[in-house]
Amino acid sequence: MVSLRGNLAGLPVDTIWILQPENRRYLSGFKAADGQLTESSGSLLITRKESLLVTDSRYTTQAQHEVVDFEVVTMKKGLVESLPGLLSRLGTRNLGFEESHVTWGLHQELAKAFRKLSPPVRLTPLKGLVENLREVKDSVEVRAMEASAALMSRILAEIIEGLRPGETEKKIAWQIEGLARDGGAESLAFPSIVASGANSALPHAVPTDRKIRTKEPITFDVGVKLCGYCCDMTRTVFLNGATAKFKKIYRTVRDAQLAALEKIRPGLESTVPDGVAREIIRNAGFGDFFGHSLGHGVGLATHERPRLGPEKPVTLKEGMVITDEPGIYIPGQGGVRLEEMVLIEKNGARILTKDRHFYDF
Amino acid sequence: MVSLRGNLAGLPVDTIWILQPENRRYLSGFKAADGQLTESSGSLLITRKESLLVTDSRYTTQAQHEVVDFEVVTMKKGLVESLPGLLSRLGTRNLGFEESHVTWGLHQELAKAFRKLSPPVRLTPLKGLVENLREVKDSVEVRAMEASAALMSRILAEIIEGLRPGETEKKIAWQIEGLARDGGAESLAFPSIVASGANSALPHAVPTDRKIRTKEPITFDVGVKLCGYCCDMTRTVFLNGATAKFKKIYRTVRDAQLAALEKIRPGLESTVPDGVAREIIRNAGFGDFFGHSLGHGVGLATHERPRLGPEKPVTLKEGMVITDEPGIYIPGQGGVRLEEMVLIEKNGARILTKDRHFYDF
Repeated sequence: MVSLRGNLAGLPVDTIWILQPENRRYLSGFKAADGQLTESSGSLLITRKESLLVTDSRYTTQAQHEVVDFEVVTMKKGLVESLPGLLSRLGTRNLGFEESHVTWGLHQELAKAFRKLSPPVRLTPLKGLVENLREVKDSVEVRAMEASAALMSRILAEIIEGLRPGETEKKIAWQIEGLARDGGAESLAFPSIVASGANSALPHAVPTDRKIRTKEPITFDVGVKLCGYCCDMTRTVFLNGATAKFKKIYRTVRDAQLAALEKIRPGLESTVPDGVAREIIRNAGFGDFFGHSLGHGVGLATHERPRLGPEKPVTLKEGMVITDEPGIYIPGQGGVRLEEMVLIEKNGARILTKDRHFYDF
Repeated sequence: MVSLRGNLAGLPVDTIWILQPENRRYLSGFKAADGQLTESSGSLLITRKESLLVTDSRYTTQAQHEVVDFEVVTMKKGLVESLPGLLSRLGTRNLGFEESHVTWGLHQELAKAFRKLSPPVRLTPLKGLVENLREVKDSVEVRAMEASAALMSRILAEIIEGLRPGETEKKIAWQIEGLARDGGAESLAFPSIVASGANSALPHAVPTDRKIRTKEPITFDVGVKLCGYCCDMTRTVFLNGATAKFKKIYRTVRDAQLAALEKIRPGLESTVPDGVAREIIRNAGFGDFFGHSLGHGVGLATHERPRLGPEKPVTLKEGMVITDEPGIYIPGQGGVRLEEMVLIEKNGARILTKDRHFYDF
């Protein structure tokens, strides 16, 4: 909040309107999710002097319990009908809105309503204002992410050690969810990926009734949310060893991951670790089979800034939490992806994901 | 698809761009979810002659398995970089976009890129084009919703019959999820609400570690998704009877629900059943404690058109699936909500939710 108000001084707006759920939680502590894009559970209005959390009767009590430093205001009607009155009360002349969350249609409706006000209220797009603050984690956030990573690592280790041929992907995914729940997770961070055999060639595979077998790749891409903060980690494992081809693929992915990890440190361009990993994979002859970026930031959302890909370089900073997750996917045969979640510290990356089920192929 | 192409003839656009996940699934069969708003798993481009599903390498194989009547195109770069080339290939001059899903920022980026094309491509907002088609269910969709409602009803009946004082809300919610998974549900339609005692006064309560007790209201608002289609239903139950006050509240809610149900038929304004229910609740002295609308449409999304509230009347049609869910919430004490999901047929509403755990207080 302090830093957001600091930003307000340098912006051409007098009021900031925050609708995006993770941004809203980051600033206010309000934990409610949105049912869908057109179904908001609340938004924040922040001026130099006042901070309102605007919600409706379904969420008033929850908001009063959860938010810190915000006055909870209950709307009797929808946003478009309620905002003009609230902005008049705040003396708003220029409202900054989140351009990556407010839809074109909602903007049109608001602009129409605001033109009728006297004095009229202008709408000014804001790009990544809170997302930029969220990039660098403070010490409280780091502790939450350590806890989230520790829980996920413990669960995944238990799953891997208990794997038996003949279990279905779906059943294993369900076991992961049960362990997450029992372990106190708020929820999964995203639907677990358990992908075996040829399914592991799909980076975003959905668990099926396929039974896992020996000698084939089995990829787990899993995450939990604890105290609001996500963990994201991936392992590919083999029961009773791998074929020569998949041993080579595994070794290549692991080498690429470790080489990228070695590079990560504050001040580096985000494209550098991606380039290092990509070159190793290309040199091993698998350049056509690594289609995605090396990694991404993690925090209140599973995917957030910064993105670590081959384009759009940004400078890595101390306090960022990012993933390092190269992969090789051979259509129809299978794939290997290995993902660590790491904290960027002064002298390099510290791995937060604790499971050590890696192979020395 | 036939009906969407029919609409194309009457619209000022030559190409329709569909990004919203349920709309995309409705038209193409592509089941992938979007990670978040800024993380699309694909979109549709539809002209009079061609139908493309545009995705990236993470989803190509899944799309090829799932979509019917669409050509799958894999983008090598992001949407803003890839769309111009695809639109040139299609000969697009005027692209219709979903104004309730495309963000202001994405629209700006696309408009900028499209102005550079020769000939330039115009962007035209479309409001509720596919959402309107989704309002009325065809016979295949009705069967899916019947199956979804039957599964959810069976699960909830089992839960209610097994309730014992001392179990926590969280544990019961987890049992519901397990039964949904075992019953073959694709997923929950939304996080289950299990709210006991004073928690039941929160329409959107999140399950807690509170233990359920006798003589208090315990509200279950639950749904599963089966074959893509959602069920949404709510029951409030009491173990060993209710207090006189909550008996009166329950009777009032049930009377309101049945009176509204009686009214529902094709041709009726959507505000009428809401008004009937609201009047009964007001006459019983609880007018201040029913803050939400009477109901909403259900289908691929838990909440979709039409909305049945006190304002914005729309005409009810045969084939709509809607909820009838009045509630009374006394802050600090508890609440009662009863929700049926019904299909509007020629002569009135047919209840799809089968559980009959109601009281004759």
